[in-house]
Amino acid sequence: MRWSSYHLPTLKEAPQDAQITSHKLMLRAGLVRMLIAGVYLYMPMGLRVLRRIESIIREEMDAAGGQEVLLSAIQPVELWQESGRDEVIGDVMIRFEDRKGRRLALGPTHEEVITFLARQDIRSYRDLPVILYQIQTKFRDELRPRFGLIRCCEFIMKDAYSFDVDEEGLDRSYSAMFDAYNRIFSRMGLDFAAIQADTGVMGGSESAEFLVPAPCGEDKLIICKKCGARFGGEETAQSCISCGAGEVEILPAIEVGHIFKLGTKYSESMNLYFLDRDGKSKPVIMGCYGIGVSRLISAIIEQHNDEKGIIWPEEISPFDVLLVTLNPSDAAMMEVSSQIYEQLGQEGVSVLWDDRDLRAGVKFNDADLIGIPIQIIVGKKATDNKVEIKSRASGEIRVIDLKDMDLSQVLADYAKGRK
Amino acid sequence: MRWSSYHLPTLKEAPQDAQITSHKLMLRAGLVRMLIAGVYLYMPMGLRVLRRIESIIREEMDAAGGQEVLLSAIQPVELWQESGRDEVIGDVMIRFEDRKGRRLALGPTHEEVITFLARQDIRSYRDLPVILYQIQTKFRDELRPRFGLIRCCEFIMKDAYSFDVDEEGLDRSYSAMFDAYNRIFSRMGLDFAAIQADTGVMGGSESAEFLVPAPCGEDKLIICKKCGARFGGEETAQSCISCGAGEVEILPAIEVGHIFKLGTKYSESMNLYFLDRDGKSKPVIMGCYGIGVSRLISAIIEQHNDEKGIIWPEEISPFDVLLVTLNPSDAAMMEVSSQIYEQLGQEGVSVLWDDRDLRAGVKFNDADLIGIPIQIIVGKKATDNKVEIKSRASGEIRVIDLKDMDLSQVLADYAKGRK
Repeated sequence: MRWSSYHLPTLKEAPQDAQITSHKLMLRAGLVRMLIAGVYLYMPMGLRVLRRIESIIREEMDAAGGQEVLLSAIQPVELWQESGRDEVIGDVMIRFEDRKGRRLALGPTHEEVITFLARQDIRSYRDLPVILYQIQTKFRDELRPRFGLIRCCEFIMKDAYSFDVDEEGLDRSYSAMFDAYNRIFSRMGLDFAAIQADTGVMGGSESAEFLVPAPCGEDKLIICKKCGARFGGEETAQSCISCGAGEVEILPAIEVGHIFKLGTKYSESMNLYFLDRDGKSKPVIMGCYGIGVSRLISAIIEQHNDEKGIIWPEEISPFDVLLVTLNPSDAAMMEVSSQIYEQLGQEGVSVLWDDRDLRAGVKFNDADLIGIPIQIIVGKKATDNKVEIKSRASGEIRVIDLKDMDLSQVLADYAKGRK
Repeated sequence: MRWSSYHLPTLKEAPQDAQITSHKLMLRAGLVRMLIAGVYLYMPMGLRVLRRIESIIREEMDAAGGQEVLLSAIQPVELWQESGRDEVIGDVMIRFEDRKGRRLALGPTHEEVITFLARQDIRSYRDLPVILYQIQTKFRDELRPRFGLIRCCEFIMKDAYSFDVDEEGLDRSYSAMFDAYNRIFSRMGLDFAAIQADTGVMGGSESAEFLVPAPCGEDKLIICKKCGARFGGEETAQSCISCGAGEVEILPAIEVGHIFKLGTKYSESMNLYFLDRDGKSKPVIMGCYGIGVSRLISAIIEQHNDEKGIIWPEEISPFDVLLVTLNPSDAAMMEVSSQIYEQLGQEGVSVLWDDRDLRAGVKFNDADLIGIPIQIIVGKKATDNKVEIKSRASGEIRVIDLKDMDLSQVLADYAKGRK
C-alpha cells in the first residue's frame, strides 16, 4: 500500500476530549474517528488492526473446537422476558418498536438468542457437546461512554456459548475456553491476569475475568506482594485472600475477557432440553465466554506505546514493514524503494510504503507514531544500494547493503530477535 | 470438519412459511434459522457461504483500488437532517432515543456517515481520489419482510463510496466499480444483467442496477427478442427502448447491486469541500456503490438448485469436498476415509466428512441437499482401496482406485471440467 493514496491521515495533536494515552494515539495515528460519544468509525488502518485481533481469536476458538455462527443485533424483547432478564438488564439495552408495534431490542449480549437457536435443533445427547461463537457488534446505552474504544455504545465482541450434557462436560468446555483465552491474549503481546470473579447478572456457578493492567483501567487487579496471588476486588486495600498477608499492590486494569459457567439458568427458563442416553429429558448445561474485541485495540495500545507513539506487537501490527522513502523526487531512492516494495510483496510481507512528498522529519515522526515494528528507511545511501533498518521498539538502526545481504533474511532475524 | 460433531442439522421438510425455493433450501440445508420475520441467524455452514461471498467482494474491491473501513450502525438523526434525507427516508429507518434524549437511528445506508468521515480529513486535492468501502449490517423497518434473505429487516451490504476532484474522476471511479461488479457476480456463477436505472432517493446523475433473473424476483428484467437489449422497467409489456421492436421478454429478477453517480448532493449539503490545485474550494464529487451481500446467498441458490437441493458454484461452496463414509462402523471404510481426509486437509482442500451413524439413503439425500460440488463416497469397495467420486451437478459417478490414481489430480481435473 502506498501512503500517498492511502486514507491514513495523522494528527499532530489529539482532539481535546481524548484524555487517555490509547485514545489520543488511535486518533492521532488515523485508526478511528468518533461519530458521536461512544460510537466510532474504523479507518482503513484501524480496521486492519481489528482484523488481526479477530484472526487470532478465530484461530484459537476454532482450535479449541468452537464453530463460528453469526447472530442478529435485533432481538425480540419477549426472549428476555422468557429468560427473566428483561428487567435486570434495564435501560442499558437499547429498545424500540417496529412499525407493527413489536417490541425489539439491540443485543447487548446473546445468551437468549443462542438458546433460541440451540433449541431449534438440539434434541439428543448425540447433538452435544457443541461450542458456538460469533464475532459481532453489540449495543449498550452507556450513560458515560469514554476512553475511546474502552467504553462504547456500539462495540465488537466475541461471544461463545458451550452446550454440554453434564457438569463434567461443562468443566471440559470451560477449561478449553480458559486455555484458549490465555493463548489469545499471550499472542497479542498482552501482560494480563486471569482471576476468579463474580457471576453477577449472568448467573451460574463459576466465572473468571481476564484483566490487562493499564492506567485508564476501570477494574482493579490486586497482587499480593508476599505470595504473588492475583485477584480482583474493591478499590480499598485488602489483605491477600490467598495467604492472608497485608501488603498488596492494587493496579487499575481493563477487563478484556470474562468466562462463566452458566449451568441451567437459560436452558431451564427457555426450555432447552435434550434426551439423554437413558431416554430422559434433561436441561442442557451451558457456559458463556466473552472477549471485548474492539476494546482490545485500546488495551494493546495502553501497554505498547512510548512518548513517540504506538509500538505494535508483531501479530497485531497493521503492516509488517514500513518502507520510508525520504525524498520521492530522488530517482535512486525511488528505484531502490520500488525494488524492496516489490520483493517483499512477492514474499508475502505486508508493506506500507511512505512515498509521500513531505519533509523527512514529518515522515520520521509519523513512522514512530503509527508504530509498525520494522522501518526500512531509504535515503541518500540508496545510490550505494544501502538502506537503514530501524526497530520501532528499540530505536536501533542498522545499515544494510542490499548487494551483499538478503533483505528477507535480515527481516526474519529482526522478527526473531524481537520475540 | 466431521459432521458428527458439526452443528449442521438438515430438515426433511421446510417450515410452512418458507414459500420460495432458496428460502426452503437454506432452511433445510441448515444454513440459517429465522429469529423473527426478517431477522435471520447464520449457522456455521451458512456463515462459511457468507464469508466466501465476502472474500470475492473484498478481493475485487481491493483490486479496483478500494480501501476497507467499518462504519457504525448507530447514526445521529441530525446527520440526516443535514443531508435533507430525514423525511425522505421516513419510517423505514429504525429510530430511537438514547437515555440522554439524543435522537439516533440504525443505518439503512451510509452516505451521511461516510461524508461525515471524509470531511474530517479530506482537505486538498492531494487527498483525492479515494474509494472507501465496508461490509456491514444494515437495518430497515420492512413492513413485509419475506423470501428468506431477500427482503430483511437486518441484512449485510457492501457499500462503497468514491471521492473525486471532478466529473472525469467520478467517471473513472464509477467505471472501475462497474467492472469490479461484473467480475464479482461472474465469479459467483451468476447469470446477471447490468441495466441503466433511476437514481431515486440517492439523487445524482447516473445509475446502474445489477439484476439476477429468478422466479421470486421483485424487480423486472426486460430483454428485447430482436436486438437483445436488456433494461429494467414496469410490469406492463413495453416496446424495446433500444431498437423499438415490440417483442420483449419480461423476467422477474433480484437486485443484487446498484451503483450511482451522486455528484455533489452530499458534499454540498454536508460541507465536504477540498482545495483544488488553483487554491479554490470545491465540493468533492461522489459516487456510491452497493451490493446486497446476504441477499446474494438467496440469489445464488435460486439459480443453482435442482429438485434434490442446492448445487453450489465452486467459489461459493462452504467446503470443496464432501467425504461420505457409508458405514462408520466398518473399519476398512473408516481407514480409507481417514487417509483421504488427512491427505486433502494437508493439501489445503476443505473437507466436510460425513461420519454420522445414519442410513446410507439419508446420507445420500443430505449430500445432494447441501450441495457441495464434489462428493467422495467411501463404501464397500474400500476393502479394495476403491472409492466413488460423484459430481453434484451432473450426477456422474466415477470409481477411483486409490492405489493407481492421485486423488488430488482427479479433483483438479473435476474442478477444471466444471469450469
